[in-house]
Amino acid sequence: VGAPEGRLVLAIDVGGTSVKAAVVDADHQILTRARGTSRRGPEILDAIEEVARDALDQLAAADRAAVGYVGVAMLGLVDPERGVCVRSVNLGLDELEVTGPLRERLGLPVALIHDVLAAGLAEVRLGRPDLVDPFVVVIGTGIAAVTFIGGAPVAGVTGQAGELGHVVVRPDGPACACGSRGCLEAVASAAAVARRYTELSGREVAGALEVFDRIDSDPLADQVWDETASALADGLLTVVTLLAPGALVLGGGLADAGDVLTDRVRRMLSERSRVNPVPPVVHARLGSGAGLLGAALLAHDRLTELPASASPAAPHQAPPGTVR
Amino acid sequence: VGAPEGRLVLAIDVGGTSVKAAVVDADHQILTRARGTSRRGPEILDAIEEVARDALDQLAAADRAAVGYVGVAMLGLVDPERGVCVRSVNLGLDELEVTGPLRERLGLPVALIHDVLAAGLAEVRLGRPDLVDPFVVVIGTGIAAVTFIGGAPVAGVTGQAGELGHVVVRPDGPACACGSRGCLEAVASAAAVARRYTELSGREVAGALEVFDRIDSDPLADQVWDETASALADGLLTVVTLLAPGALVLGGGLADAGDVLTDRVRRMLSERSRVNPVPPVVHARLGSGAGLLGAALLAHDRLTELPASASPAAPHQAPPGTVR
Repeated sequence: VGAPEGRLVLAIDVGGTSVKAAVVDADHQILTRARGTSRRGPEILDAIEEVARDALDQLAAADRAAVGYVGVAMLGLVDPERGVCVRSVNLGLDELEVTGPLRERLGLPVALIHDVLAAGLAEVRLGRPDLVDPFVVVIGTGIAAVTFIGGAPVAGVTGQAGELGHVVVRPDGPACACGSRGCLEAVASAAAVARRYTELSGREVAGALEVFDRIDSDPLADQVWDETASALADGLLTVVTLLAPGALVLGGGLADAGDVLTDRVRRMLSERSRVNPVPPVVHARLGSGAGLLGAALLAHDRLTELPASASPAAPHQAPPGTVR
Repeated sequence: VGAPEGRLVLAIDVGGTSVKAAVVDADHQILTRARGTSRRGPEILDAIEEVARDALDQLAAADRAAVGYVGVAMLGLVDPERGVCVRSVNLGLDELEVTGPLRERLGLPVALIHDVLAAGLAEVRLGRPDLVDPFVVVIGTGIAAVTFIGGAPVAGVTGQAGELGHVVVRPDGPACACGSRGCLEAVASAAAVARRYTELSGREVAGALEVFDRIDSDPLADQVWDETASALADGLLTVVTLLAPGALVLGGGLADAGDVLTDRVRRMLSERSRVNPVPPVVHARLGSGAGLLGAALLAHDRLTELPASASPAAPHQAPPGTVR
């Protein structure tokens, strides 16, 4: 005997370099895991299918039948209602149908969600349920965020709110991939940290964490880390000024480096904030698995709603007048 | 015979230079008006009482009895639940009780609201009810804003969200009264426009509108207007990037100058926005009376709620889980 029917979900997190999948139970426990490499263009669907089957095949036959929904977290601009990836520069996608084809390939209903929103949902519901109206930032290769008001994420009319990575913090700063100049992402993402260190030192590094490891032994590493914290503090200062959130939650690969970043950001924010008091600046608890857990949350939510409706509204695009 | 009992409200708008009052009916029509000069410190209560009595005394006796609630819109940081002006630099106030003393002096229940929130409420409910999730900016002596999601204003955990005037748009720009540097308010408020023109031309001007009148005849006036629009566009770009609102509504004295500002801001925003499409940039419809009408809306809302509860929650600080 396995889990009762429809009590398990398949969660998939589609990133720019890897595709991760997991079968997750109703208590948010991961039963099986699988991982593969992302592919550019429509072939991403093949990559997703392979990783999905890998995770499903590890289940006992009885459990396989208990999987009732698939949740897909995806980077880029996604339209959850249409089940489409509208655009992803990293994956080379433009209007790719995701939920329809995957439903056909896997024989299960599929729901789609933006990866940062998924990570934020998981962090707020599972990692830090104690926080009121938190603003959750994911600092990795890029920087994105989601703000929660009254327990629900704010999507904006485009579904694309929370683009903290493209708030301009250094008007004369480096060019950003988006076409602007001095975006937070161009100055304070993991990629930007490595780039800046190489620019200052002439030394190539494998990534931001290598720069992090040189703090205290290499003044240039210290300088880069300070510049990064300062830019993040400026971006978050704008958030505090405009939204007055109840907490700032820092997650993603760069924040996972430890308290060094969180501590500096907190101190700089406190020095600079004038209008609104600085809320607690805390570390995300779930780490890099947050996107996967958020996709599982979405799938479980849908599973619960299934008897009522075969196609419920996406949870972060509530109809007018409901909690946002 | 006058209006039926409890169908009229007394609305008061307390600004840095003047106190305005009006008796308003349930159809948002103004029956009487009064105006006086603001005073600094606790004497502001005397000024409010005098102007309030002036507006009430103009009513016929029968209508006087129909006034059932007082709504006070006030600048600075206000705490609607406690009925206190927590701080107002312009009025020299620090923890001044407002609703209690006024209730005693006027013999009517009193509700308090932040003036920009009041103006935004009026604009959204009466001026532009067609807009979805608008971001409303008031550009006057200072710059403040309020964002609406699902029909309700976002207050933030401090009640002080929407401080667009203190978003830094020119990191090396002029000092702001708040202690920061390059805040939008220090570059693009009506006061900043006049100051900048004087700085460039050496000529004193009465105010921003005089600079506006010189556009096309004085290149320096043109330059100042362009700088102002550019700074506003940068501030609003951040709003579009973070919140993806359904519309940007520009109001206040400077926006009332005409389409010149709105047109330039719209064009610059479109040129600069990369991540989210620019929503409609529209002109506020209510003009300088919006704060007064918003105070009247608050008072009418309270009047309607009165039978259910003698002390209803402030409409913009909804309990957790309700529409924000």
